[in-house]
Amino acid sequence: MQLEEIIKQIKPLNAAAMQAARIRQDTLTKPRGSLGRLEELSIQLAGITSYPLPSVERKTVIVMAADHGVTSEDVSAYPAEVTPQMVGNFLRGGAAINVLARQANARVVVVDMGIAAEIDDPSGNLIQYRVGAGTANIAKGPAMTLEQAIESIQSGIEIAEKEIAHGVDILATGDMGIGNTTAAAAIACALMNQPPENIAGRGTGVDDDGLKRKISVIKRALEVNKPNADDALDVLAKVGGFEIGGLAGVMLAAAANRKPVVVDGFISTAAAMIAFTLAPAVRDYMIAAHVSQERGHKSMLEWLGLNPLLDMSMRLGEGTGAVLAFHLIEASARILREMATFDEAGVSDKD
Amino acid sequence: MQLEEIIKQIKPLNAAAMQAARIRQDTLTKPRGSLGRLEELSIQLAGITSYPLPSVERKTVIVMAADHGVTSEDVSAYPAEVTPQMVGNFLRGGAAINVLARQANARVVVVDMGIAAEIDDPSGNLIQYRVGAGTANIAKGPAMTLEQAIESIQSGIEIAEKEIAHGVDILATGDMGIGNTTAAAAIACALMNQPPENIAGRGTGVDDDGLKRKISVIKRALEVNKPNADDALDVLAKVGGFEIGGLAGVMLAAAANRKPVVVDGFISTAAAMIAFTLAPAVRDYMIAAHVSQERGHKSMLEWLGLNPLLDMSMRLGEGTGAVLAFHLIEASARILREMATFDEAGVSDKD
Repeated sequence: MQLEEIIKQIKPLNAAAMQAARIRQDTLTKPRGSLGRLEELSIQLAGITSYPLPSVERKTVIVMAADHGVTSEDVSAYPAEVTPQMVGNFLRGGAAINVLARQANARVVVVDMGIAAEIDDPSGNLIQYRVGAGTANIAKGPAMTLEQAIESIQSGIEIAEKEIAHGVDILATGDMGIGNTTAAAAIACALMNQPPENIAGRGTGVDDDGLKRKISVIKRALEVNKPNADDALDVLAKVGGFEIGGLAGVMLAAAANRKPVVVDGFISTAAAMIAFTLAPAVRDYMIAAHVSQERGHKSMLEWLGLNPLLDMSMRLGEGTGAVLAFHLIEASARILREMATFDEAGVSDKD
Repeated sequence: MQLEEIIKQIKPLNAAAMQAARIRQDTLTKPRGSLGRLEELSIQLAGITSYPLPSVERKTVIVMAADHGVTSEDVSAYPAEVTPQMVGNFLRGGAAINVLARQANARVVVVDMGIAAEIDDPSGNLIQYRVGAGTANIAKGPAMTLEQAIESIQSGIEIAEKEIAHGVDILATGDMGIGNTTAAAAIACALMNQPPENIAGRGTGVDDDGLKRKISVIKRALEVNKPNADDALDVLAKVGGFEIGGLAGVMLAAAANRKPVVVDGFISTAAAMIAFTLAPAVRDYMIAAHVSQERGHKSMLEWLGLNPLLDMSMRLGEGTGAVLAFHLIEASARILREMATFDEAGVSDKD
């Protein structure tokens, strides 16, 4: 479906289903409200899916990878060649996201959104939606054209809709791309009108000099490109990344199809900010997995109005936080569905 | 094993296993430290079990139930008959702990540590270690005798050691007992030398008047009984509960047998404080599952030096927070065991 149609198709949460879930929660054998965020989550899931007894059994994490021209400014602790190497690791099942997805019984979908080098993929499992061979250096000009920005989002929509057509109850987002914390921070600075000092962090682990360099690169990127904060496509094109656009598309498609989407860390949250700016209603379909160690992440989540489930001092990306959160989200749905009511269990209710 | 022997048997964590786990974490395909608390947890598990590649597959939550004479002071939002009714619900699989344990693939062991009424148990699954038919009213005198306090801890040790003998990798604690937040708060006040206003919360949901009443009951319990903060058995006997003593015993036995033990919420943390006062080395074997909504819980965890994994605004008990945390702890062990190293994956390390 086209971007404009997808945006139109995103509706508010289903209030009747939420009310039914809320009423059921209050009949279950526990003091009302005593399961806190598990209860809230189950009600949100009901509103998203329009079912009073939602299920989130079939889980998929979509991990999008791309390269970033800004790596030539020496903003990362790891060389750019790590992007395709880690994608190979994803395809062979050796990365953190694979381990955590196996535990959570979640499918991992790996997408090349624009890695500089061609990937050798004997597994045949890499999904190719290459918008380009990496973005251009945002310190010197726009990351991509407006057409590429739209194509990246459109690709994310297509990928998510294919997954949904195959049958999935919940989606999560993940990323890989050396240099992408620089792009994500630039997006957040542009949309929040914040200086890079407040947003940029150490990414994969740059030292103090590296962080200073990164901040000055983001400043230049904003000065050179002058992204328009009211125009998400302009921001994405000027300082974004192909995987960030793709993840924004995944979120929009999830919402349009009434599926919950679990937003991972710093990069995914930048993508969520793009999606939210395009279609504010998408926000209610999002579940923020965790607050990461990356400097600006907490304020970005606040800007979105999202309250993260976990705070595990993580900063890896790949969707690792989102897949950890799957357990909590599944717990919320199971509580609503499987617990006995006071009547069924013959338990006395509150005095 | 006897209490004194158990205490002697609790040794420091295994430094060599921790170092081996730490070194392995630093070879895995992720920026060093980027999995934050998952990395720390895996290193703690290595130190606890003495294995550099620990596993926590076989999980058991021990849920201990007992009644509290202090309920006659009208300190709870629910009538005391709910204790046996909820135990029946546990045995039939309809409670929150059952739902969450099924999800986590954990065994639920339900123990009657001293419920006032005899429980009709057609399932035959209820474990009977009745120390008495509920405690006495702590507002008027000691909850139990010193012999009963020792018996409750000793029972917990026996129950845990039976589970460990059958093969278990990780234990969690849970509780049921109308009135037990009053006893747990009294224990915390005694050991921390804090006024009840700072510790007591709404439990299952008392209103403002109920909370005032509860605080004044705890004050009276402390004045009447004068528990000695340096003597955990005295505190347990004077203002504790049979399930709280039992849970302290579970924690001591876990540590003595080099098994991790996941401490649930407010009640379990009071038990942890008793265990810690008896044997400070037990602390390193504990993993704090979550910080609950109950007022003093955060400061009790700080007093113990424990950093909770989750903050889900929960306040149910039963072991629900602990079993949710199982997913995170298992994730940490799987990461250490299953992720590829930089060498194995052919990924370039940091510049």
